[in-house]
Amino acid sequence: MKGLLLEAAEAVQHAVEAMTGNPAEVLGRGADGGPSARIDRVAEEAVLRVLDYEEASLNVLSEEAGFINRGGQATLVLDPIDGTHNALRGVPAYSVSLAIGHERLSDVQEALVRDLVSGATYYAAKGGGALLNGSSIHVHPYDPADVLFSVYLGTNAAPDASRIAARARRVRALGAASLDLCLVARGAADLYYMHSALVETKLRAVDIAGGTLIVREAGGLVLDLDGRDLDLPLTPTARTDLVAVGDRRAWEAIR
Amino acid sequence: MKGLLLEAAEAVQHAVEAMTGNPAEVLGRGADGGPSARIDRVAEEAVLRVLDYEEASLNVLSEEAGFINRGGQATLVLDPIDGTHNALRGVPAYSVSLAIGHERLSDVQEALVRDLVSGATYYAAKGGGALLNGSSIHVHPYDPADVLFSVYLGTNAAPDASRIAARARRVRALGAASLDLCLVARGAADLYYMHSALVETKLRAVDIAGGTLIVREAGGLVLDLDGRDLDLPLTPTARTDLVAVGDRRAWEAIR
Repeated sequence: MKGLLLEAAEAVQHAVEAMTGNPAEVLGRGADGGPSARIDRVAEEAVLRVLDYEEASLNVLSEEAGFINRGGQATLVLDPIDGTHNALRGVPAYSVSLAIGHERLSDVQEALVRDLVSGATYYAAKGGGALLNGSSIHVHPYDPADVLFSVYLGTNAAPDASRIAARARRVRALGAASLDLCLVARGAADLYYMHSALVETKLRAVDIAGGTLIVREAGGLVLDLDGRDLDLPLTPTARTDLVAVGDRRAWEAIR
Repeated sequence: MKGLLLEAAEAVQHAVEAMTGNPAEVLGRGADGGPSARIDRVAEEAVLRVLDYEEASLNVLSEEAGFINRGGQATLVLDPIDGTHNALRGVPAYSVSLAIGHERLSDVQEALVRDLVSGATYYAAKGGGALLNGSSIHVHPYDPADVLFSVYLGTNAAPDASRIAARARRVRALGAASLDLCLVARGAADLYYMHSALVETKLRAVDIAGGTLIVREAGGLVLDLDGRDLDLPLTPTARTDLVAVGDRRAWEAIR
């Protein structure tokens, strides 16, 4: 279904570009209770129109609408805009995240994340490796002399996040989970650490379904904070922390 | 000299795009003793060719070459690639930073920073305000309910950096000082905090000459860590910490 995912990503890109220059207007709250904005709703509608037009037999789990039963065999797990707050304030890091799965994160078969600022397109099909703009990508072997971590920080981060950030020579934080995961997949970051002190800011299936498959297909690991392969039901309410690493030595370095 | 700065930025953009796909090769060390790479040298050469072609009467202070006396009345302060490490590893945050000045940061007259990933162009002329892609930009009024800080973190950061990051609801870190400054200028970030524990990772004039004028012309403040307006000689060796804020209340919030 790569063609369908690409078409959906392009529909979001065009919808967002059409809104450029208009100050984005916060309208309400999404299905998860989190802040929602007009940009998310417009992007979600663009994807739903593509599914209708293509008569795609897919249910949808989306940040905005929650679960939509369209009588499909599989489910499109969609974050129409990951990094909404970045988009609203002007931090150039936001994306659309798409994944095809069934019941759980572990059964996701195909994923596409598009960086809506640069246009970079990350894609993975289970067992087929990961691609960036059509070229194979791989995680970075851990090198203690060149360590770059992406870490979730701030008032809602768990206290250990600062300690972990202090162990890396370089720290980056994009604030869009799908893009932070793709940094690990392409070898730009050795680790992405997201440990929230509050349940309501932990990550949802829609945030990570795409990026998780892309990291794993690029040779990396997406783990829970006990070091087990992360799994999660594909539901609107499930929430999780996670650590993604390109190389298991990065995980061992923070334990 | 906006036309000349734009032409130089475009020359860098084309030089970098021509290298895309070639793994960047680290060649040596720049004039400041820091790590240098082929991508920086190629970008610097592209700018010097523009100056020669346009017969521009400007000296050059550059990250790579140090100070070049070309018999000019003013000096082009150039970081051909700010965020080289990002570019080499694949973090999509690197820029070219250009400024026209004389002796000190405080006498910079004109500045242009181009985000080489998105193509966004930030420009300011002293007393004329700041522009992003030709439209006026302004800093963000401080709102305690929506605080976003960009903070320099990791093994070389001073210990207070973690404490400051923990005060913001959202933390971002791009790892390219000119772009982190431009986040403050456009109102995306309330504060950019760079306090290095090591002299050799503090910021240089080439890193901040462009972004500092852009922040100030957008209505913000660029301060030293005692809260005074930052100044610095335009030399290859001068180094500094800094805090940039859109609104003085952001500075007061971290004291």
